[in-house]
Amino acid sequence: MSKKEYVSYGSCAVGVPGSKEGIAGIRFNLAPMSDDFVDIILSSLENVDTSMVWSETDPTSTVYRGRESAVFDSVRAVFSQAYHDDVHMSIHMTISKGCPGDHDADYTLDYDDKRINNRNSREISFPVVGKFSLYPMGSDNYMSLIEEVVNNGIDRGVFAGSGHYTTYLQGDVHDVFDYLEYVAERAGKDVSHYIIEASLFCNLPEGESL
Amino acid sequence: MSKKEYVSYGSCAVGVPGSKEGIAGIRFNLAPMSDDFVDIILSSLENVDTSMVWSETDPTSTVYRGRESAVFDSVRAVFSQAYHDDVHMSIHMTISKGCPGDHDADYTLDYDDKRINNRNSREISFPVVGKFSLYPMGSDNYMSLIEEVVNNGIDRGVFAGSGHYTTYLQGDVHDVFDYLEYVAERAGKDVSHYIIEASLFCNLPEGESL
Repeated sequence: MSKKEYVSYGSCAVGVPGSKEGIAGIRFNLAPMSDDFVDIILSSLENVDTSMVWSETDPTSTVYRGRESAVFDSVRAVFSQAYHDDVHMSIHMTISKGCPGDHDADYTLDYDDKRINNRNSREISFPVVGKFSLYPMGSDNYMSLIEEVVNNGIDRGVFAGSGHYTTYLQGDVHDVFDYLEYVAERAGKDVSHYIIEASLFCNLPEGESL
Repeated sequence: MSKKEYVSYGSCAVGVPGSKEGIAGIRFNLAPMSDDFVDIILSSLENVDTSMVWSETDPTSTVYRGRESAVFDSVRAVFSQAYHDDVHMSIHMTISKGCPGDHDADYTLDYDDKRINNRNSREISFPVVGKFSLYPMGSDNYMSLIEEVVNNGIDRGVFAGSGHYTTYLQGDVHDVFDYLEYVAERAGKDVSHYIIEASLFCNLPEGESL
């Protein structure tokens, strides 16, 4: 009988990021609700310059790791490149930094030009609706940080209401990505480990208004 | 000029669930990657008996709230009812209990028979792959709880590996839902507020193996 290989996080200390280099990461998957989903997903991943991030795709999702700005630049590019006028599509993202179980591996931090896809991405503009939740870990004052970032979304005009377990977003795709990047930056100043769970949707049968 | 209506979570105390009744909830969305996505989503939602949960659907997602067992029964039923042999589909779930900002509203807790859809759901069986992350909030020892539940997944045979920011799952859809329900119950014993982010996928072009 083979011995089970259990996981162990015993060496992790909460409040101490496992990565000392400040690696941020996004795990995401696209869901184009179309018979052509394979082509849409694969061609969008191929159209993005991922030379500024570490990248890995498995059957469930893709991960980008590196500088926070490079990671956001890459995922914004994927969603923009995947856009088709007539296809309802969602992207589901887990944005994370500072996990105590992380390691200084699988990343790229060595470059200056961190928004290599920005010009191409911003040529494609479309309205989205979405939702996000911020999870500041290991903190006993996490609700005030959440309040602050939600109110920033109100100031920016991308806030579209509060719901159970989530905050709704709506606006131009780039305004919403700019906001999510702000949320990540702001959270990283307050806590050593945060996760943002976010989903964006385009071409909804109901239209892009909540 | 109209005054902006900011949110305020100032009355929230971490460690004190906003709901005193122990309301659990799931916010989820189905993504059938098919031209028939509207019919698949709407017919599956209609085929589920939601009399044991509070339910609300918006353009981004659906929420069920009530007893934890009833909430899991309902979402398991939605995903099972939405299954089509030839359609690649994902479900994205945010499972949450004990948020300090929650309220004793929008719920159903008054019934004894909490698994009203169970028999119908279990008549439909299919393999899935998936991924999940557990976020125990307001705790300074959260990595040990995560370790415990991941190792339980190894014992059950649904663990399919660790990845950046996630733990992979694979197995029969009901074994995987049983496991996620265990994770929720176990987390609820350790912390007053937890979130589980989980995605399941069926009929992958690559097959249901990671």
